[in-house]
Amino acid sequence: MANEEQKRRLSVDFSSYLSRISTELDKTIDFWLRHSHDKVNGGFFSCLTKEGKVYDATKFGWLNGRQVWLYSQLFEHTERFRHKEVEEAALNGAKFLMTRMKDASTRRVYFATTAEGKPKKLQRSIFAEVFYAMAMAAAAKLGNKDAFKREALDMFDRVVSWSRDDDSDLGRDKLEGNDVKQTFSDPMWILALVHAVEDIDDESELDLEDVRGWAVHRLKMHVQRDGARVLEIVTPDGREIEGSEGRKMIPGHSIEAGCFLLEEARRKKDDELRDYAIQHFIASPFEYGWDKQYGGLFYYLDVDGFPCTQLEWDMKLWWPHTVAMIAFLKAFDMTGDETHWRKFKAVADYAFKHFADNEHGEWFGYLNRQGKVSSPIKGGPFKGCYHVPRALLVAELILTNSSQLKAL
Amino acid sequence: MANEEQKRRLSVDFSSYLSRISTELDKTIDFWLRHSHDKVNGGFFSCLTKEGKVYDATKFGWLNGRQVWLYSQLFEHTERFRHKEVEEAALNGAKFLMTRMKDASTRRVYFATTAEGKPKKLQRSIFAEVFYAMAMAAAAKLGNKDAFKREALDMFDRVVSWSRDDDSDLGRDKLEGNDVKQTFSDPMWILALVHAVEDIDDESELDLEDVRGWAVHRLKMHVQRDGARVLEIVTPDGREIEGSEGRKMIPGHSIEAGCFLLEEARRKKDDELRDYAIQHFIASPFEYGWDKQYGGLFYYLDVDGFPCTQLEWDMKLWWPHTVAMIAFLKAFDMTGDETHWRKFKAVADYAFKHFADNEHGEWFGYLNRQGKVSSPIKGGPFKGCYHVPRALLVAELILTNSSQLKAL
Repeated sequence: MANEEQKRRLSVDFSSYLSRISTELDKTIDFWLRHSHDKVNGGFFSCLTKEGKVYDATKFGWLNGRQVWLYSQLFEHTERFRHKEVEEAALNGAKFLMTRMKDASTRRVYFATTAEGKPKKLQRSIFAEVFYAMAMAAAAKLGNKDAFKREALDMFDRVVSWSRDDDSDLGRDKLEGNDVKQTFSDPMWILALVHAVEDIDDESELDLEDVRGWAVHRLKMHVQRDGARVLEIVTPDGREIEGSEGRKMIPGHSIEAGCFLLEEARRKKDDELRDYAIQHFIASPFEYGWDKQYGGLFYYLDVDGFPCTQLEWDMKLWWPHTVAMIAFLKAFDMTGDETHWRKFKAVADYAFKHFADNEHGEWFGYLNRQGKVSSPIKGGPFKGCYHVPRALLVAELILTNSSQLKAL
Repeated sequence: MANEEQKRRLSVDFSSYLSRISTELDKTIDFWLRHSHDKVNGGFFSCLTKEGKVYDATKFGWLNGRQVWLYSQLFEHTERFRHKEVEEAALNGAKFLMTRMKDASTRRVYFATTAEGKPKKLQRSIFAEVFYAMAMAAAAKLGNKDAFKREALDMFDRVVSWSRDDDSDLGRDKLEGNDVKQTFSDPMWILALVHAVEDIDDESELDLEDVRGWAVHRLKMHVQRDGARVLEIVTPDGREIEGSEGRKMIPGHSIEAGCFLLEEARRKKDDELRDYAIQHFIASPFEYGWDKQYGGLFYYLDVDGFPCTQLEWDMKLWWPHTVAMIAFLKAFDMTGDETHWRKFKAVADYAFKHFADNEHGEWFGYLNRQGKVSSPIKGGPFKGCYHVPRALLVAELILTNSSQLKAL
C-alpha cells in the first residue's frame, strides 16, 4: 500500500498525464476530421502530409475500416465526441466500405482502391477483411444495425475459417520449399475480433469460446526460448523454423498482442492469463526491444543477434510506442503494480517528445534510430486514423476510470 | 587540351584510383569465393554477415544469375582471375540455375529457393529471368556453349515478349483502378540483355535492332518535366500518372540506365545518344539526387517534394553509388570531359569512406542518411556478388585501357 506521500505524488502524476493525453486526443481527432474525409466520394484519405494535405488519393481498405472503428469507439465512449459529425463519419465510412471497397462476388475487401473505390490492390492476407469486420461490428452500435451486424458476422466467419481451416481463397502461392508456417498476426487480430463480435452478438454461428481458446493457444505457441522471446513465425506445432524468418521478432507486435490478451483476461477474470500476458508479451519484449542507446523500441530484431534484412529494423515507428503505452497502463490498472505505471510514463514521455506534432496535431510515424523524424507524413498506406487516437482514447478512459486511481 | 601540369596531375590521380580499385576488387572477389559457395548443393548463398557467415541459407535466383555473370566477366576480362576456381564457379553456378532454380514446366525462374533448390518464392516480375538469361549468355563463353546459349536466347525471347506483348505468364493482378503502367526497369534490363545476347548471338530469332530501338525509345519516355526528371512509372504513351507512384524517382536507377545507354551509344557510335544519356540519365539525376547536407545519393525522391512513403527513402544504398562511379567514368572515357572525372572521384571517395569494409572485404550495403552503417550485412535477398565487383571491374578496365589515359 502506498503511503500518503506516494499517493499524493501518484495523483498529481495521473492528472498531469490525463491532461496531456486529452489535449493530444483532441488535436488528433481534429486533424482527421478536418483533413481525411473525402467529401466527394465518401470514405477516408490516409496519405496526408504533416499539415494534412492529401499527397495521394488512394484509399486503403484496412485503414478505412480502422477509422470507422475508431470513430465508433469515440462516439460510444466519450461525451465530448458524441456528436453528429463523428457519428455520420462512422456510418458513412462503413457504407463506403461495404458498397465500394468489397468485391461483391468474391466478398474480399480491397487493400487499396482509387478515391472512387475502383480496385487497385488485393492482398494475400486477412487484414483488410479483419478491419472490415471490426468496422462493421463497431458501426452496428451506431445505426443500420442489422445490415452492419450481418456483414460483421459474415466476415468474422470467413477470416476465422481462412486462418484455421483453408486459406485457398487468399491466393497464396504454395511452394514446396516453404515450411508450413503459423503467423503471429492471424490469431492476434482474431482475438481482437472475438471481443468486437462478443459485444454485438447474440446469435453467432461460430462458437466464440472455441475461437478465443484457439487464438490464445496459438499466440502462446509463439513464445519460445524458455519464454524469453516471442517469434513472429513458427510451425503449426510450435517449433521454430530456420533462417531469418524464423528468428524474427517484432517487439511492438508482441506488446500489441499482450493488450488483447489482457482484455481477454479481463473478460474471463483469468489472473493467470493476465500475468502470463504481462510477463511474456509485454514486459519481456519491451525490455528486449528497447534501444538502450537512443531510446525507443526497435522495429525488428533477430533473436540470435544476426543482422535483420529489413532496412527499417532500427527505425522507431509510432505504433509500437502507442501499444506499449496502453499495455503498461492496462497492466497497472489490472494489477496495481507501480512498475507498470513507471514504464507507461517512460514510453509516453518518449512518444510526446519525439512523435507528437504540437503544431498540426496527430503524430509523426517514422523516426530514425536516433529519434529524428525521417519521414514527415502523418498518414500513408500503413498509417491512418487508428493507433494514435486509439492509444489516447484508451489511456484517457483508463486514467478517468481506473480502479487504481479510485483507490487513491 | 590539358597543359603539362594538368596532365601530370591527372596521371597521378589515375594511378592512385586504379590502385585502390584493384585492391578493393581483390578483396571483394576473395570475400565471395570464400564465403558464398555452397559446396554441398552447388549455387551461391547471398545472406552473409560482414565477416562472411551465412545467416540464412535461402538462395536467390536473380542473385545466383548475377554471380554467374560476374564470375564469367572476371574470367573473360582479367588476367589475374582467369583461373580454374572462377571458371568452375561460373559453370557450376550456371548449372545449378538451370537444373534447380528454373521450373521445368513453366520455365519460370524462382526468386528464392531453399539451399537444395526447392522453390520458396516466385515474383510477378521479370528479373529472375533477366539475370538467368544474362548468366547463361555469359557462361556460354566459358563452356557448355550450345546448351547455355540456347537457354539464354530462349529466356531472352520470353522476357522481351512479357515486356512488349503479353505479361499474363507473370500472374499479375489486373484491377480496373490501376493505370496502365510502364515501368522503367523492364526496358533498362532488356537493353543490357540485348548487349549480352549480341555478344554471343549469330542466329537470333528476335530482331535485335528492333528490340534495342524499342528499349531506348521506352527509356526516353520516362524523361519528364522538360527533361529535368526521370520518373519510374509513366503511361505507355509517356504521360505521368497521378499520386506518389507517378512522382517517384530513383536517382540510382536513372544513372544505371544511363550506363546501359552509354554502352548502346558506344556500340552504335551514336554521339547524340551518348550526350542525351549523360545529360538526362546521369548528370541531372545525380545532381538532383545527391544529399547536399550529408553526401551520398538518396534512394527515393518525390519529384514534387512530397514525402516518400518508402521508409528507406533517405538511406544511402551501395548500388546507386557503384553505378554512379561507372557512369561518370564511362562519360569521361567517352567524352574526355574532366567534370565527369571529378564526379567519379567524388562518388568513389564517398563510397570508399562509407561503404568499403577494409577489414573483411566487400562493401556494406545500407547506411542511414548520415552515412553510418545501419545494417552490417554484406549480402541478403537484394544484395549479392554483383554491383560492387561489377563497378570495380569496369572501373579497373576503363582506368587500364582508357583512351583518355592513353592520350596523356
